[in-house]
Amino acid sequence: MMQKPQLRPCLALIKPYIPGKPAAEVERELGIKNVIKLASNENPLGPAPLALQALQQSLGSLHLYPDGYCYDLRLAIAGRCGIKPEQIVFGNGSDELPSMIAAAYISPGDEAVSIKPTFSEYEFAMCLMGGNINYVPLVGNDFRFDLEAVRAAITDRTRLVFICSPNNPTGSAVAQKELKRFLESLPPGVLVVLDEAYHEYAPAGAALNTLQFIREGCPLITLRTFSKIYGLAGLRIGYGIAPAPVIEDLNRVREPFNVNSAAQAAALAALQDEQHLQRSRDLVEKGKEQLARGLQELGLRPVPTQANFIFVDLRRDAKQVFLELMRRGVIVRSGDIFGFPTYIRVTIGTAEQNALFLEQLAAVLAG
Amino acid sequence: MMQKPQLRPCLALIKPYIPGKPAAEVERELGIKNVIKLASNENPLGPAPLALQALQQSLGSLHLYPDGYCYDLRLAIAGRCGIKPEQIVFGNGSDELPSMIAAAYISPGDEAVSIKPTFSEYEFAMCLMGGNINYVPLVGNDFRFDLEAVRAAITDRTRLVFICSPNNPTGSAVAQKELKRFLESLPPGVLVVLDEAYHEYAPAGAALNTLQFIREGCPLITLRTFSKIYGLAGLRIGYGIAPAPVIEDLNRVREPFNVNSAAQAAALAALQDEQHLQRSRDLVEKGKEQLARGLQELGLRPVPTQANFIFVDLRRDAKQVFLELMRRGVIVRSGDIFGFPTYIRVTIGTAEQNALFLEQLAAVLAG
Repeated sequence: MMQKPQLRPCLALIKPYIPGKPAAEVERELGIKNVIKLASNENPLGPAPLALQALQQSLGSLHLYPDGYCYDLRLAIAGRCGIKPEQIVFGNGSDELPSMIAAAYISPGDEAVSIKPTFSEYEFAMCLMGGNINYVPLVGNDFRFDLEAVRAAITDRTRLVFICSPNNPTGSAVAQKELKRFLESLPPGVLVVLDEAYHEYAPAGAALNTLQFIREGCPLITLRTFSKIYGLAGLRIGYGIAPAPVIEDLNRVREPFNVNSAAQAAALAALQDEQHLQRSRDLVEKGKEQLARGLQELGLRPVPTQANFIFVDLRRDAKQVFLELMRRGVIVRSGDIFGFPTYIRVTIGTAEQNALFLEQLAAVLAG
Repeated sequence: MMQKPQLRPCLALIKPYIPGKPAAEVERELGIKNVIKLASNENPLGPAPLALQALQQSLGSLHLYPDGYCYDLRLAIAGRCGIKPEQIVFGNGSDELPSMIAAAYISPGDEAVSIKPTFSEYEFAMCLMGGNINYVPLVGNDFRFDLEAVRAAITDRTRLVFICSPNNPTGSAVAQKELKRFLESLPPGVLVVLDEAYHEYAPAGAALNTLQFIREGCPLITLRTFSKIYGLAGLRIGYGIAPAPVIEDLNRVREPFNVNSAAQAAALAALQDEQHLQRSRDLVEKGKEQLARGLQELGLRPVPTQANFIFVDLRRDAKQVFLELMRRGVIVRSGDIFGFPTYIRVTIGTAEQNALFLEQLAAVLAG
């Protein structure tokens, strides 16, 4: 082609995101059937039934632009969370929000601190704006948080701290007291981004209360999603809650119609579907025990998890196991994409899916 | 709140996008009913019926992440357009694409050239990246394009040229020959962004053939949308077609799951709904005549249009007329947001909606 403009130099550093392949694609490529995907932490019970009902009713007006303010959903979330409507920003999935946050606050050379291993979107967001991200390792076999080490990694150039809790891919989480101490220790001008995509899976008593800190005016934004326990990953909707001045900044960089109408209607109804929420929690609690037991019987030690997935060290090249499992119709995540090449991350599925995974894993490890 | 990071200085220049208010919001605020909205160039016939059928069938799998590659839709569009699958990029609405293009190519101080008046998203995209946009006015009462003047406005810092054709809000369009000459005159390193959101409304013979230039390797990206004639604005899906090296750059900055599954399923089916497309075109052709005649009877001279809206000079403060029309249950766009404070832009609606608009406008202008 004739000469195009040059790509911004900082973008050369972006590692393309490699999503878990859809089951249909694996079936197409390998010529096999009944593939199960335990790779993207989706809810195996499907979308919240009340959400599907609401969606049906919204179909006739899909020719109209969405409500860019998400009026109804905004009021519903504000009411449930005890916060003000202007303390919420919506995203095209919560994974759009790190990019919006970086677009608002990061100039070339600015820094962020995060933990390792964690979700790759934070690094992507920083790269987009020419910023740098410094990682502080999680600690020990159970991947504990060390927020004092995170605090020590903050410099004059640090604008953001990305913390995912429960953390993807480890399932480990921050404790309330530790977070409080960390927030109190922050220098001015640093925003903490607390990605709580798996918040609803944390066992009662262990879940963080981040809203309390936001009400007190802490420089904290919590990210929530409808993609996980609510079963709406396909529709792309998530949100952030933060003090209003932060939300105001994010609204400056937000695309006016970033959240589609179907997602808004479905999310509003999903919030009210207590039964689906409870069933989904129960499924994960039971599946967690089933998988932990099964993995232990294989001589493995799964990392204790507060989310709907399990990170486990296979003590061998996990990429090979991942490929062999895929050929046998089970898709998981290989730990090499997180920098842990002997681990896999497996989503907690239905009892049948979990059993099938354990059976195939046993066969692969024995083979 | 405690001190948050400072907003990036260039963002202070962003003028918040003020969307046309949803009819429901106007009804709520004014306590009136049966409000009609002729403000957002939506298709009054609603979504393509085949799209709604396909959507129904996709509901059960909305708990799964979307196909980030849009496999089926990509192949369908490539086939119809006679281009390669790797020459397409999808957006969360085509209005996400200018931002992606600026994110790929614009560093602070870089420039773009566009026309005036036009769609505001191009300026938003440039502002986000700290770039500048220079405007070349359209010419005469019919807002003709002058691409020689656009060429003359290109400097050493110019990376992008944004052209909307048929243009929002004027409805005027570029001719094929003129575009060809312009592309041949371009200096290296400049990408032309041709926003063809209203492409399908251009009368037979007048529509641009941009694909031909892309096949030849011209540094051109054409933007298309499912929000207008296909009636899927609520679902947010659009796409760009360009030489593969440009698409590769854009995929670096694209969020991995930016297009939701419902939109992908609906768009694929909408492409096949020839009947809906034809009915929508016919409605606009007839409505165009109806509105032109009606406006002329009021002593006004509507700008000739190749799109599904009409720009017309009321020769008085249009904001007042806009507000008065809204109180009477008809929402249009006031030209002040485009820098033309005596104009309004009205979407071509159904025969009944057009008649109601003309009736209320006559009353307001007489009052």
